[in-house]
Amino acid sequence: MRTLVTGGAGFLGSHLCERLLADGHEVICLDNLFTGSKRNIRHLIDLAAGPVGGANTRSVGGLACGTADFEFVRHDVVEPILLEAEWIFNLACPASPVHYQFNPVKTVKTSVMGALNMLGLAKRVKARVLQASTSEVYGDPQEHPQREEYWGHVNPIGPRACYDEGKRVAETLMMDYHRQNKVDIRIVRIFNTYGPRMAVGDGRVVSNFIVQALRGEPLTVYGDGKQTRSFCYVSDLIDGIVRLMKYEAADSHEPVNIGNTTEVTMLELVETLGQVMGRKIAVEYRPLPVNDPVRRRPDITRAQTRLGWQPRTPLREGLTRTVEFFRQSLGMT
Amino acid sequence: MRTLVTGGAGFLGSHLCERLLADGHEVICLDNLFTGSKRNIRHLIDLAAGPVGGANTRSVGGLACGTADFEFVRHDVVEPILLEAEWIFNLACPASPVHYQFNPVKTVKTSVMGALNMLGLAKRVKARVLQASTSEVYGDPQEHPQREEYWGHVNPIGPRACYDEGKRVAETLMMDYHRQNKVDIRIVRIFNTYGPRMAVGDGRVVSNFIVQALRGEPLTVYGDGKQTRSFCYVSDLIDGIVRLMKYEAADSHEPVNIGNTTEVTMLELVETLGQVMGRKIAVEYRPLPVNDPVRRRPDITRAQTRLGWQPRTPLREGLTRTVEFFRQSLGMT
Repeated sequence: MRTLVTGGAGFLGSHLCERLLADGHEVICLDNLFTGSKRNIRHLIDLAAGPVGGANTRSVGGLACGTADFEFVRHDVVEPILLEAEWIFNLACPASPVHYQFNPVKTVKTSVMGALNMLGLAKRVKARVLQASTSEVYGDPQEHPQREEYWGHVNPIGPRACYDEGKRVAETLMMDYHRQNKVDIRIVRIFNTYGPRMAVGDGRVVSNFIVQALRGEPLTVYGDGKQTRSFCYVSDLIDGIVRLMKYEAADSHEPVNIGNTTEVTMLELVETLGQVMGRKIAVEYRPLPVNDPVRRRPDITRAQTRLGWQPRTPLREGLTRTVEFFRQSLGMT
Repeated sequence: MRTLVTGGAGFLGSHLCERLLADGHEVICLDNLFTGSKRNIRHLIDLAAGPVGGANTRSVGGLACGTADFEFVRHDVVEPILLEAEWIFNLACPASPVHYQFNPVKTVKTSVMGALNMLGLAKRVKARVLQASTSEVYGDPQEHPQREEYWGHVNPIGPRACYDEGKRVAETLMMDYHRQNKVDIRIVRIFNTYGPRMAVGDGRVVSNFIVQALRGEPLTVYGDGKQTRSFCYVSDLIDGIVRLMKYEAADSHEPVNIGNTTEVTMLELVETLGQVMGRKIAVEYRPLPVNDPVRRRPDITRAQTRLGWQPRTPLREGLTRTVEFFRQSLGMT
């Protein structure tokens, strides 16, 4: 199976590439390296070039992948590309506010033209294509938890719209290519995910907290810290995505939420992190940003019933592994 | 003043071109003629070519425009174009379900790439750009009437999403170009509009009803006919658009609703049409289409207070003129 992963050098993309290689796929990893990084896939490239080994190889735990099965292509999904693949995972898009608001117009283009280009490619080569969508399509939800049928509550002209509306239109395009051209599509709505290879300084709460904690700084809590998030560990998320891609049924084109249902407040997250790190952690309060969603939790009935999926990694365990990654990444071991 | 009107050969666009010519503008009319028609602007082209006169010229009532002031360019806004203009009105997009659902993917492209191309042009030539948005950004509203602050209730994966989400992203892009590149933008949210030059067979209720009535057929009413719309006569709408384009203030980039606040049910519309035509009209009921909004009425406080605008043409008067147009158009005079 030849599989294309756009955004393959990103946080989620690199884990997906590893998983697909482990499953025996030939993987083409496309990335413009705006938020993705070669450090995330260097061990895969090294393996492909031959048994170089070294620290990077060992650090991922001796992943069993064939040397010629991985290829990195520096490419921006805003531009069309012609290649052969049976599966396409379209993950390319900056996903944290600090990155997607850096150049909002480019963010919209990445979502919309990226989806168009990958759908065009899928149509041409008869590939199955999965769009990485997001819980942000629900915006600041007025239904709780969020079912896939919920239409969402999004400000079309706010500072987050470039991401939220960009992803909504990516979904629209997926469905229209499906209805209009019978393209075989999958749509996954990804809720908050954390784990090794989150970018330092991407402004997301888990990486922020861990980096601040490792540096001995007080943790920045926005608002009163009682807003909740549901955090899914990356390997659980990847497993859900792969299950959705494999799922074949009359309803397989419908969006599926993948995320953790255990809601934690920011203050509970601080506390768990304190347990993992074995010390009490100080916090510092700041005002809540504009249009920041105050509550978000997936209804995962579809994932459970259709894919037999549910998250398995407890927060404390996932945090332990993530803290370990950041400790190494910041050179603190 | 050199002014570009995309979609200038369409229903609204052609009226806008006439108004701008009457105001002394030099008008470049861009259209791919997918739903627009040369018949809508033929009298303007003829005038530009010289004093040809004839039936078409007389039929618009001796419009006073300079012979060289109008130019038609056959161009699709999905492709970039380079030209000079001080004002850009971006109206290009099929606007009735029967047309925008003909090729949903193309509809998304027209909205998104059209906005991108016109914003890129505006940025390059330092033009002011107005985006024709729509009441459809409110979707199936849960607030009534709809204020501009309302975020809307839109199904991102439904059959109307190509239009609704396409227009929402066009607004997102406008705001992002404004925030990011200081482009001088205007956003008008257009509610139901009717008048001469609506396309026969575009599936919109006013043209549908009039054409059916003129042909002596029963009028097709979807659902129970109690869903309401607010119908704005085209000259009122054009006046609102021009006022918004001229409006200069700290808040001039914010969306403004333009539409009629008088809600009428489909059955009331049938009745008024019967009065205009001087006879009782039969109706035929059909099921309501998927995701059809059941109620829609603008809050026009912004237009009133900022632009000093409000609709002036009573439904009966507007319908009389529109019936007259369709009578001529169908060769029934």
